[in-house]
Order: sequence, then structure tokens, then C-alpha cells
Amino acid sequence: MLQGYFPPLSPSGKSGLVSAPPWHYAGDALGIRFRADPDAAAATLPPGLAVDPDSPGGATALFMDWQFSSEDQTYLDPVSQYREFLLLVDATWQGTPVSWCPYIYVDNDASLARGWVQGFPKKMGTIHQTRSFPVATPAAPPLGPGGTFAAAASTHGVRIAEGRVTLAAPVADPAALVGRPLVNRRYFPRLAAGRHQEPAVDELVRADLHDLQVVNAWAGSAEFSLPDAPGNETSALAPISVDAGFKATITYSVQDLTTLVDLTTDLSTDRTTEPS
Amino acid sequence: MLQGYFPPLSPSGKSGLVSAPPWHYAGDALGIRFRADPDAAAATLPPGLAVDPDSPGGATALFMDWQFSSEDQTYLDPVSQYREFLLLVDATWQGTPVSWCPYIYVDNDASLARGWVQGFPKKMGTIHQTRSFPVATPAAPPLGPGGTFAAAASTHGVRIAEGRVTLAAPVADPAALVGRPLVNRRYFPRLAAGRHQEPAVDELVRADLHDLQVVNAWAGSAEFSLPDAPGNETSALAPISVDAGFKATITYSVQDLTTLVDLTTDLSTDRTTEPS
Amino acid sequence: MLQGYFPPLSPSGKSGLVSAPPWHYAGDALGIRFRADPDAAAATLPPGLAVDPDSPGGATALFMDWQFSSEDQTYLDPVSQYREFLLLVDATWQGTPVSWCPYIYVDNDASLARGWVQGFPKKMGTIHQTRSFPVATPAAPPLGPGGTFAAAASTHGVRIAEGRVTLAAPVADPAALVGRPLVNRRYFPRLAAGRHQEPAVDELVRADLHDLQVVNAWAGSAEFSLPDAPGNETSALAPISVDAGFKATITYSVQDLTTLVDLTTDLSTDRTTEPS
Amino acid sequence: MLQGYFPPLSPSGKSGLVSAPPWHYAGDALGIRFRADPDAAAATLPPGLAVDPDSPGGATALFMDWQFSSEDQTYLDPVSQYREFLLLVDATWQGTPVSWCPYIYVDNDASLARGWVQGFPKKMGTIHQTRSFPVATPAAPPLGPGGTFAAAASTHGVRIAEGRVTLAAPVADPAALVGRPLVNRRYFPRLAAGRHQEPAVDELVRADLHDLQVVNAWAGSAEFSLPDAPGNETSALAPISVDAGFKATITYSVQDLTTLVDLTTDLSTDRTTEPS
Repeated sequence: MLQGYFPPLSPSGKSGLVSAPPWHYAGDALGIRFRADPDAAAATLPPGLAVDPDSPGGATALFMDWQFSSEDQTYLDPVSQYREFLLLVDATWQGTPVSWCPYIYVDNDASLARGWVQGFPKKMGTIHQTRSFPVATPAAPPLGPGGTFAAAASTHGVRIAEGRVTLAAPVADPAALVGRPLVNRRYFPRLAAGRHQEPAVDELVRADLHDLQVVNAWAGSAEFSLPDAPGNETSALAPISVDAGFKATITYSVQDLTTLVDLTTDLSTDRTTEPS
Repeated sequence: MLQGYFPPLSPSGKSGLVSAPPWHYAGDALGIRFRADPDAAAATLPPGLAVDPDSPGGATALFMDWQFSSEDQTYLDPVSQYREFLLLVDATWQGTPVSWCPYIYVDNDASLARGWVQGFPKKMGTIHQTRSFPVATPAAPPLGPGGTFAAAASTHGVRIAEGRVTLAAPVADPAALVGRPLVNRRYFPRLAAGRHQEPAVDELVRADLHDLQVVNAWAGSAEFSLPDAPGNETSALAPISVDAGFKATITYSVQDLTTLVDLTTDLSTDRTTEPS
Repeated sequence: MLQGYFPPLSPSGKSGLVSAPPWHYAGDALGIRFRADPDAAAATLPPGLAVDPDSPGGATALFMDWQFSSEDQTYLDPVSQYREFLLLVDATWQGTPVSWCPYIYVDNDASLARGWVQGFPKKMGTIHQTRSFPVATPAAPPLGPGGTFAAAASTHGVRIAEGRVTLAAPVADPAALVGRPLVNRRYFPRLAAGRHQEPAVDELVRADLHDLQVVNAWAGSAEFSLPDAPGNETSALAPISVDAGFKATITYSVQDLTTLVDLTTDLSTDRTTEPS
Repeated sequence: MLQGYFPPLSPSGKSGLVSAPPWHYAGDALGIRFRADPDAAAATLPPGLAVDPDSPGGATALFMDWQFSSEDQTYLDPVSQYREFLLLVDATWQGTPVSWCPYIYVDNDASLARGWVQGFPKKMGTIHQTRSFPVATPAAPPLGPGGTFAAAASTHGVRIAEGRVTLAAPVADPAALVGRPLVNRRYFPRLAAGRHQEPAVDELVRADLHDLQVVNAWAGSAEFSLPDAPGNETSALAPISVDAGFKATITYSVQDLTTLVDLTTDLSTDRTTEPS
């Protein structure tokens, strides 16, 4: 009897690329709030999500330095450290403000797989961000007023995002930085003849982040760009304006998720985008 | 309306990690036929597959230098070159000899995704093999008698396989090198609470390789090892004996596949291994 | 007594990043002849080299898929396969036409070290080129008329070069593709206080390529670009015009080199560029 | 006139793999004090260094998560974050206790070059260590009693080191963790015929670390191993016993260094190891 949560299933279950939840995350975030072309942002939304009338084109870029742990202290595995870049677009689900992730890049295969299981459309990339250290040094910015942090993301040798944040003041309500519920689309295609456009799995889900903590949160001014990159449509969301940036440490756990709608059977949405 | 075959679906459909078939492959293979412990090999089989009574423990290791192309000339994309290592175990499906792939590693995210869609349980790895060149040089072995080729695979910084083949003679029937039909297991888990062991997709499928050609095939003696590697059970299939090695160039196309059994609903197999 | 040719020197001498020559190379080349801005090309020349009056701005881009071997059959080491991108500028040394390499990128640390020892100013990069296979397949171009090959190079996540060649006809004189002697600058700086601009090693050398063979050489039309990339001045050599492209397999050996002038002591050149 | 400190020298000087000092470093260290076979440790010493009679076989392993900055705020460059693993052996120089680095691995080409300029015999590797975060989370250990941190290093797909430290108590004198002066060997070979064993540069130097600060230092129990790895002699220093581990944040600057002896001319040392 084969064991495991994700392929390869194996005799002991230890070979799987991903073990079953709970999945625990801690990471340093460099975030940038910006406004994309509202039509371009709307064009990324899946069936069931609508443009947020209070924030058309509103979006967040996140560069993350993550550490992951599944079972007891698996953060001791050297595969646990990885980096990520993602875009989140403001949207609504049945009138409720939510975030939608159209594009996300990561440098770790287990994270790629956990992403797909959760409905994050991950591709591989390389991501870096400036770090701070608990000591004054010309090698790092202070985590405080005037500290400037940069980040960049590339995929397959092409730069896709660059950001820079200069801290000004602590964030009064850190949890609000990641306050919107996250709606993802779990999607797994068929390969059977004639059914390539009939996915085996296609559902909108709500990510349930447990024990979410946001600490050491500072905000300030920001710069951000999304250069053209073949095979990626990130640049369609290039900022019209950049509102602000922040730096914070984030931790949460994932146990499961909630299906909002099964798009393989739901006729009301018809796999087309709901009018905004 | 979002377009695409694999996430991220996008306005133009050009962002997807993988485009829809046809998928065309050409690659240099270094292969090794060996015999694993029959019980260890049997323990990797999914429900529905049985030990091949004519080849208990029979297995093939393949190191591949691939080039991929989807639509017209996408081999011009620098992402098209990648490398792979896989193990194939001899088995039977309803009495017919087939190959089963318990473990496979690749250095390219698009190949990872195409693998999962086809039911290959891919993880990321780094793979290298010796090349030959169409000129006599001390920098490369000849593709002919006495030419020695080596290959190695690692995953996350740990060596998982090493092989070496010394060519002796051309292969009389090259197509027989990859003659068994390939049976894979398409598997995509659920994340909903209480259903982590009820996959959304779990089916045995037969890979349909079109226009398969095997050329420049040479066979000879071989060495092969599968060292211990934490988080991987490849070493359970470490060779008891090594039969022979080969080098060949392989090309084929994938358009679709054939589902043999849906393991999420088929009660007869009950998701346990069929007795051999 | 420590052994070895390059650090780390070690008790057995097997730890060194690079072993002593001879060094044997075989590789697939995708090459593009182009013309850069003559002033920009001249600005890359070291003291002692002058603009070639018969080819001002003349340059060659080379994308290489290499295999290396030092002693007996070290091509069996998986570290032996690597990829490279370089630019060569037409110049003269004491009136003799030569090639000068202002910029070169490689994906392998041993090659980086061998490069520096020879005077190639290597940095790390990622490089890919389309391959051909000895069989007709939609996954690869033919090595013949109409076959189109692409190549790309990046460094630290930023694209620095893209090329494309469509083959038309065999090359009548393949050796002429790499016919100019190569002049490099061996350079190793000091770190002692006040002497940062007084290199410990600074000499012009002539690379001596033994047993040079160029086979399977085809020429045709080409496209080439050198996009802007921060921290790299490759784009200053962006093509004004592209003459032609070629594909070939190259093999040669390196045993040593010849010093043309020691720039740390030669007063006549005075470390300034010779007038052209 | 070409500009720069390290190749490629270029018209603007911005292409060089490394810019001139000052070089500023800040990093998280996971360190392990252990005892190697005294003869094996002695065998790694260069001419001029002797076994420390008070610490025969005494050694330190360091896994580092670094951030580098050269000029004003170059920590904003995404190339500034990198990781390193090194071994330091206790030795004496003219009776003074010093540290000697026989082997060191890093994942960044600029760091490789700065290393060679300083006399660190760097090769490329992949290195990871567990991180702590300023918040209680199952995804990370606390930086305090009972917190367990792991680290691993590999080179070219083969694991070379694994360590684990469980913190017990703050370190009373953090600066003592890196208290010994560091002696390196700057070495750059010749390639001229017949002179491969007559390096162009071969000198013992003392690294001068300015503004060294060691903060957040905790010590505890440790495990450490140096597995066999072909082409590397690290395993010859495998621990006979492991004394203790520590975790700390380190920052310092490098401006220059001091030459202790020029081994290309110094006849007294004769390039053989001084008797201990």
C-alpha cells in the first residue's frame, strides 16, 4: 500500500514532494501597494470574482523570504528555506473584498507543489530581497526610519519585477497589511483526447490562514516596476501609480481550505468572468 | 475569459507554465538495465499493477538530455533544454507487460508540470551525462566500441544516482529499448478538511507515445548505484545486479493519454496493490 | 607538502578547483558575426591592442555548449558539461589581426577559474542554445538548410544576449570561423593598502589552442541583440549590423600560453590604450 | 583607459565582477567547534603555519547567510545575498595562534572572486541554514534555550557537510567566537609552459577585519559530519569529537590585508610545511 499526500506516493510515504498539512510558514515580506490598469487587473480574474468597485486596479506585490515546516521541526531540513514573489489583485467574491493571485514565482519545488494544491499558479523563479540585521552596519539598512530595502524577481533568466521601499514609520495595524481573504483557483487539466479544455479540477477556494501574525511592520515610500518578460503577462499589471511600501515578518499555518464553487459543474458562472 | 492549458491561466494564454499538446521531445539517453530487490520493486507499484512474473525486480534507469517543443519551433525558447533522471520498473497491467515510473527528477518547471499532468511523479533535480561529439577528441568518448559515458543525478544537494556505460556494439532492435507501454498514475490531492487522503484525481493511465524513434543506439557493459538520500526512497531499488547499458537518441510526441482505471471510484482495486 | 595547480591546494591535490593542463575542450557553437559601434569596441581594448583598421567594430558572439576533460577521461565527471557566452572583438597586436574577449559568462566554477588563469574575464551566467538531433523530429531543427537555432544568455536573472541563426549552406573553410589568434589579459589584483590599482598580475597573453578542429560548420542569416543589463557593459557593444551566423562543433586543447607583454613593468604601453 | 578592480576591466568600471574595497559584510552564522584528526588538520597547513600545540586538530565549521555591500548601499543589488560554508583550522604563525581556512564554498561569483583576492580557496556550493524569526511560530526555532538549528552544504550535487546546534545559553564573550586572526594564502598560478608549478602569486596574508561585531550569540550542543565527496578532501577533517555549537550575527569590513611572507621568493620556508 503506497503512502503519501503528493506524488511520488511510496512505500514509506517519505518520498512525496509534499507531506500532508499542517503547513507552517514564517517569512520576511517586502510589500508594495500599487495601482495597475483596472482593465488589465480585471482581465486576470477567474469566473466568480469581480472587480472591487472600491479599489479598481488595486494590487499588492510581495517579495518573500520564507521558511517552511510541516511536521515536528522539519525546518531543520535545508530544503525549508525558499523565496517567492507574487502579485495580489483586489477583487470581490459575492460582494466581499478578497485578494486574487494571478501570478506567483518561487525557487523551491515543494513550495511549487503546495502552491498548486492550494490554487496558487506558481512557476519557478529567482527572488532576492535586502535583509536587515540586529546591529548597525554599512552592509545593511536599519529596520527603521530611512532604511531602504530592495527586491527583485526573475524567471528563466529574465527580470520580471523590481521594487524598493524606504521605511518611514511603524505600521499601526500590521494585520491589515494582509487583511483580505485570499481566493485561489485549484486547477488540474485533463490530457485525455478531446478534453484538454475540460480540467479535472477547477474550483475557486478560500485560503484559510490560521494563527496569522504580522510583526515588525514598517511602512514607507516605494518604487516598483514590472518589466516585459516573454511568456509572462506580469507586465500587463505594470503600476500606473505606486502608493506605499512595507516590510514585515509574517507567520501562519495552513490546515485545509474551503471550496467556494466547483467551476467544472457550476453552470451559473459558466467559466466566464462575472461582470463587475 | 482566461486562456490556457495549465496555470496560470491568463488573458492571452501565454503565461501558462505549460501549453496544450502536442508536446514534442528529442533527447539523448543513457540507460541502464538492472535488477532491484523484487519485493522493493513490487512495493512501488500502484493498485492495478502487478509484478511481472517474467521480470521480478527488473528495472531501467534513464538519464536524459532533453529538448522540448510545443507549437511551431518553440525549441527556439531557451527554456526548451532540460535534463531528467527516472527509474522504470517492469510490471504487468491485466497480464500485459508494462513499465511503471516510481521516481523521476527533472531540472525544469515546465517539464515538472507536464510530468504531473501525465502522471509522472516528478521532483526537481540536477542531472548530467557525458556527451559524444562528431569528431575525435580527448574531451569526449567516441559513440562506438570502447566509448565510456557517465551520468549522475542529485536532488537538493544530495547524490541519488550514478551510472556508467561502456559501449560495445550497436543495438539490433533499438525500439525494444523502450518497448513496454508506460503506465502512470495521475494524482492530485484534495486540501479540504478531512479529505486529505481522498485525492481529487487518482487514475492509472497509459502514456501514448507517438512517432517514437530510437536511433544511434549502442549497448555495452554498465555500472549503476542508487545511494541513500533522505526524503527519497530510490535507494530501496539499489541494484542487486546490473545487466547492461545503452546509449541512444530518442524522439516522440505526446498528444493525449488513455485512462485505464479511475482509482477514485473503482472498488475492485480498492487502492491496494494487486497480488502478483 | 600541499599539492595542486589552483586553490584549494591540498594534501592529495584532488581538491583543487582546477587541475593542471592539458585541458581538452569539445563544444557546440552558435556564432554570430556582427558590427558594434567602433568607438565602443575600441573602448574595450587593453593597452597594447589596437583597433583593426580592416574591421573597426567587427565582433563575434559565441554561445557554447561545452564538455571539458583534463586528465584521462575526466569527461566522466558530471561537472564536465557547462555552457558559455562570450564576445570577441577584432583587434590588432603589433599589426597582426587578433581577437580580444571583453566579456564572457559561464555556468561552471571550474571553467570560471580556468578562464581567469588564461585571462578570460569570466562571470557566472546561464546560457542555453537550441540543439539538433540525428533524426527528423518536430522537437528540433535539422542541421542543414532552413534549420533555425536560438540562444540566450543571462546573468544574475537579467538577460544579456539573444541570438538566432537560420542555416543556409555549409561553411567552406570552417577553421576560418575561429581563425584569429586570441589575446587575453591575465589580471589578479592586490588587496594591500594603497595598492588596489597595482595588480599583482597584469599581462597580455596569446592563447595557444592546440589541435583545433572545427566540424559540421554551417552558415546562414542571423539576428542578435545585447539588451541593457545593470552591472554589465555588454549592451555598449549592441550590434549596428548583423552580418551572418554559424553553427559548428569545435574541439581543441590548452597546454600553456605565451606572454606578449607584462603590463606591470612595461613602460612603453603605460597601461593606456595604444592609438589605433 | 579601462577601469575597475577585478576583471572584466571596462570603460566605465561597472562591469567588474568585484569592485574595490571597502567591502562590508553582515551575516548569520551557525558555527560548530570540533576536533579533527590532528595529522589530517596539520596536512592542510601551508608553509609558514604550524600546528597549534594547544589545540591540535582544533577546528571550526561555519555556515553563513551573508549580505554584502561595497559602495553606498549596494546591498540594494539583489546579488548581495549569498551563502557560504567554511572550515577553519587552529594553527600558529610564528608562535601566535591563528585560523587557517583549508576549504570554503559559496553560492555567488562575486564572493568567489573576493575570496580568491583575499586568499580564501573558494569553490561553488549550495548552503542552507535554519532561520529564526522574531515571533513564536512552529515554522522556526526560537533564538534561545532549546532552539535547534540545522545547516547543510553541498557542492555540485554532493553533500559535504551537515551540522545541527541546540542553543543553551548566551555567549559571555561573543568576540571570542572569531577571536583568532585569520591567515590566508593568496595564490594565482602561471600557465606558461614549464612553469605550472611556479605560481605568479603565492603569499601568506593576514586578513584584517575592521569593525568586527558579534551579536545575538548563543551557544549549545552540536552535531557535525563531513561526508565523503569526490574531488573534495573535506572528509579528511571529519570530526573525532564535537565540542559545541553557536549561533550569532557577525558584521565586519575589509579594506586591505597584510602580507606575512611572499612564498614565491622566501627561501626559508621553501614551500614546505614548517614542523610543528
